[in-house]
Amino acid sequence: MTPTAPPALADKIVPAEFLQDLVAFCQQKGFIWGPSPEIYGGMSGFYDYAPLGKLLKNNVEKTIRDTFQVNDFWEVECPTVMPAKVWEASGHLGGFTDPLIVCSKCKASFRVDKLLEELYPDKSIKPENYLSFIESENLTCPSCQSEFIMEIKKHNLMMKTQVGLDTVAYNRPETATTTYLPFPRYFDFFRKKLPFGVFQIGKAYRNEISPRQFVLRMREFTQAEAQMFIFADQKGKFEQLERIKADELPLWNYKLQEAGEGPSATSVEQALADGDFKNQAYAYTVWLSYNLFRNAGIPPDRIRLRQHGPDEKAFYADDAWDIEVRLNSFGWTEMCGVHDRTTYDLTQHAKFSGKELSVSDETHKKETPHILEIAFGVDRLSFALLDIFYNPQDIKEGKTTFHIPTALAPIKIGVFPLMKKDGMEELAFGIYEELSKSFVCRFDSSGSIGRRYLRAAEEGTPYCITVDYETKENGTITLRDRDTEEQRRVQKDVLRITINDLLLGKKRFSEVGVAVTKKEE
Amino acid sequence: MTPTAPPALADKIVPAEFLQDLVAFCQQKGFIWGPSPEIYGGMSGFYDYAPLGKLLKNNVEKTIRDTFQVNDFWEVECPTVMPAKVWEASGHLGGFTDPLIVCSKCKASFRVDKLLEELYPDKSIKPENYLSFIESENLTCPSCQSEFIMEIKKHNLMMKTQVGLDTVAYNRPETATTTYLPFPRYFDFFRKKLPFGVFQIGKAYRNEISPRQFVLRMREFTQAEAQMFIFADQKGKFEQLERIKADELPLWNYKLQEAGEGPSATSVEQALADGDFKNQAYAYTVWLSYNLFRNAGIPPDRIRLRQHGPDEKAFYADDAWDIEVRLNSFGWTEMCGVHDRTTYDLTQHAKFSGKELSVSDETHKKETPHILEIAFGVDRLSFALLDIFYNPQDIKEGKTTFHIPTALAPIKIGVFPLMKKDGMEELAFGIYEELSKSFVCRFDSSGSIGRRYLRAAEEGTPYCITVDYETKENGTITLRDRDTEEQRRVQKDVLRITINDLLLGKKRFSEVGVAVTKKEE
Repeated sequence: MTPTAPPALADKIVPAEFLQDLVAFCQQKGFIWGPSPEIYGGMSGFYDYAPLGKLLKNNVEKTIRDTFQVNDFWEVECPTVMPAKVWEASGHLGGFTDPLIVCSKCKASFRVDKLLEELYPDKSIKPENYLSFIESENLTCPSCQSEFIMEIKKHNLMMKTQVGLDTVAYNRPETATTTYLPFPRYFDFFRKKLPFGVFQIGKAYRNEISPRQFVLRMREFTQAEAQMFIFADQKGKFEQLERIKADELPLWNYKLQEAGEGPSATSVEQALADGDFKNQAYAYTVWLSYNLFRNAGIPPDRIRLRQHGPDEKAFYADDAWDIEVRLNSFGWTEMCGVHDRTTYDLTQHAKFSGKELSVSDETHKKETPHILEIAFGVDRLSFALLDIFYNPQDIKEGKTTFHIPTALAPIKIGVFPLMKKDGMEELAFGIYEELSKSFVCRFDSSGSIGRRYLRAAEEGTPYCITVDYETKENGTITLRDRDTEEQRRVQKDVLRITINDLLLGKKRFSEVGVAVTKKEE
Repeated sequence: MTPTAPPALADKIVPAEFLQDLVAFCQQKGFIWGPSPEIYGGMSGFYDYAPLGKLLKNNVEKTIRDTFQVNDFWEVECPTVMPAKVWEASGHLGGFTDPLIVCSKCKASFRVDKLLEELYPDKSIKPENYLSFIESENLTCPSCQSEFIMEIKKHNLMMKTQVGLDTVAYNRPETATTTYLPFPRYFDFFRKKLPFGVFQIGKAYRNEISPRQFVLRMREFTQAEAQMFIFADQKGKFEQLERIKADELPLWNYKLQEAGEGPSATSVEQALADGDFKNQAYAYTVWLSYNLFRNAGIPPDRIRLRQHGPDEKAFYADDAWDIEVRLNSFGWTEMCGVHDRTTYDLTQHAKFSGKELSVSDETHKKETPHILEIAFGVDRLSFALLDIFYNPQDIKEGKTTFHIPTALAPIKIGVFPLMKKDGMEELAFGIYEELSKSFVCRFDSSGSIGRRYLRAAEEGTPYCITVDYETKENGTITLRDRDTEEQRRVQKDVLRITINDLLLGKKRFSEVGVAVTKKEE
């Protein structure tokens, strides 16, 4: 899928203003509502996907599924609630904490790391120095200016619950751990042959103290994670490499970052030769993630792949790159992590569960497989599409548009009668009902036709159909293209196939029906 | 979609044996694993959807989405965690409990209602008489035969958790309540016009003490619920009725139940005239639910619609019918509830939130809308398909098959090389890769070709492709039909379109390619 190029952005977007506009747009048009439940005052970090947002998110999830499936990853769905033991093994029960500091007077809690990051964006203060730094700078509570209680509390981010009468359990803080656990079952399902790939799309929960950044940092969110289970020696010689090795990726390796230079378009093969990726299988997972984000409509000039520096890498990670996407509201933003987790997870779960998780085949004696992992947030990806394809320039012209790529558009077709009289409404409604069997459509008969075109453009609807007097005479309707505002007359009997061809990119707009000479708006 | 008729069932299925077989089949073939997490011993009531089960469940969810969308219901996604106040208002915090009794010696807990139901299936014992009945019958602990502590405990079924530092919240026990709450937002989204419909598919949680019946009663499960918001006077005159009024439904009204008679095929119009449905809008929601279950592949002879008797109806419900499906493992089983909830929910939430939830339009002064609701379990529906289309007769012939309707089949195409040599494997893999772009396919090159056909039939795969020596000579492959075992030779260049036609029902199997005269197995 080739995403529609977004219209040129205003030279100077003010990110905070843009975000405010965008959030208002999401709420008013019915993309995202919240914090939820709104009538009860809302809990920060929880949101509703409204009808248009849910259609968008479903389309994003469909792209994820299609991309993984074509690349032979198989979807699973594991419970979102797991017993304490699992999270002891994964390290979340001990280590998954935020540092908090509490005001001595108003008792407000703050995340120390975020507080210092905001106040001193250019300084990098280490956790062991938080207290001494606060002391030396005489920092006080941002709410009431009183002194802090000088103690860093560790706030665990997991939402605890209970199963049965006495089993302590937690809402999962990530999908990944739950995906590792059926490993012995996978091994049978894939007929005892490695490598194989699985993925999961589902809810995860993090009890952040002060969630921010709209749906970028939620307490309940949707994650997509894919894992490849592979023997160590298979990582170096990976069958799929052949077909992808010439593809270029916008790599921003650690050296370029240190030198203050930007990313460089590098072929997978070259990156392997340069040591940017340690092995072929890992290179493939990075390539796959990049293509997934491109398939999901993120334009190439807004993606870069950033290598983790040696200090930044998790202790178990052998290789780690992030996908970053340039948002209008938050600048370059981490959207996806691709990690070589080696044998860490299966070793931990073998130890804590007491079950054998090493396996053998014809050429391998009992070995614990490695896990290569792709992890990203579905909410972030959906938000990125809203952020990128919503154009602030248009607002200033009194015209809001959402130039989402056609394949991801929540509603594909708007159907309008020019007027409510002379049978046009009934005729239009019949067309709407017929097309609804194949596409998500919206019927709209209220307000001027220009107002209805505008509303549809705001919702990102790529094509609108208008039924007018001519429809009754010769059976043609007006088909209007969101982006060019061009209109063409098409026979209503071939509408379904025409629209299908347009949506699949089999035909261009200029190739269907006949041009309308005068504007009818 | 016309589902494939299931092959004739063995005259006498023993439900318990059938269930045991079916569960083993689900686990071995990769439909459902658990209780999860298995390597940690599992928590009852939690399961993993394995790759084939997840594909099946996705297809079921797609059918639900398509059916609701075509009928102008709009999907939303609301948080699964909500603050205590919401569940006070909904009544779940006070009333959503199971009656428990505990053994004085082994401390095991039992659901009194279920225990008595199992021991005395023909008796209907009222909750206020549980203790006296247990006493009079001298019932003891089923585990250790010791006496019970003579007290009925109320066990709340909600999973409690915490948000932030001190907000008490709960994992939702149903999707429905969370769908009601954005009502003021919906009213704006639908441009202040009633009726309108929304739906939600998502996780819900019930901390049952002893979950049973495989995935029919889970602690974490997927629900689908749809709500129509409507003014009282609109219920009696409902626009959509015209197109559905002649459709017949297998209605088992309260009178037929009392008379010991079976359901009767009744048109929607007749049912309204007879007073089986109190109003047109409610009749429409029952019709919609029935059609949804049919679209999801449940054969007509396995569905009936059962009216709730006066004693059974919830106090707020004005009209209530269930969809029941006849399972091989559990007999007639409740699968879906269709309730006229009147103004109950919005009245409660207005009271507890302090927000105005009554609305007005041109012809209505401030009124609280009614809610008509359809609610069912996606896991139950997926299980029903496994139960109905898995044929125990075949097992006895040493042949397991899963005759799932084509549209719902997890994998659409199996691709096999007849042998691994002479380039057949590479050729088959190329075809597999090409077809994978359009369909979920599985490549299989291990074991005899007969064994591979059998494996594919077990997985419910409707069509298999075999690449053989002839493929290299004339470019044709063998296409095999799961149900008839018939084989036809098809040109590999037209495979994609041929399979598409078969899957969409545009062509019959006998209409594609040319018949294979001798069996090649």
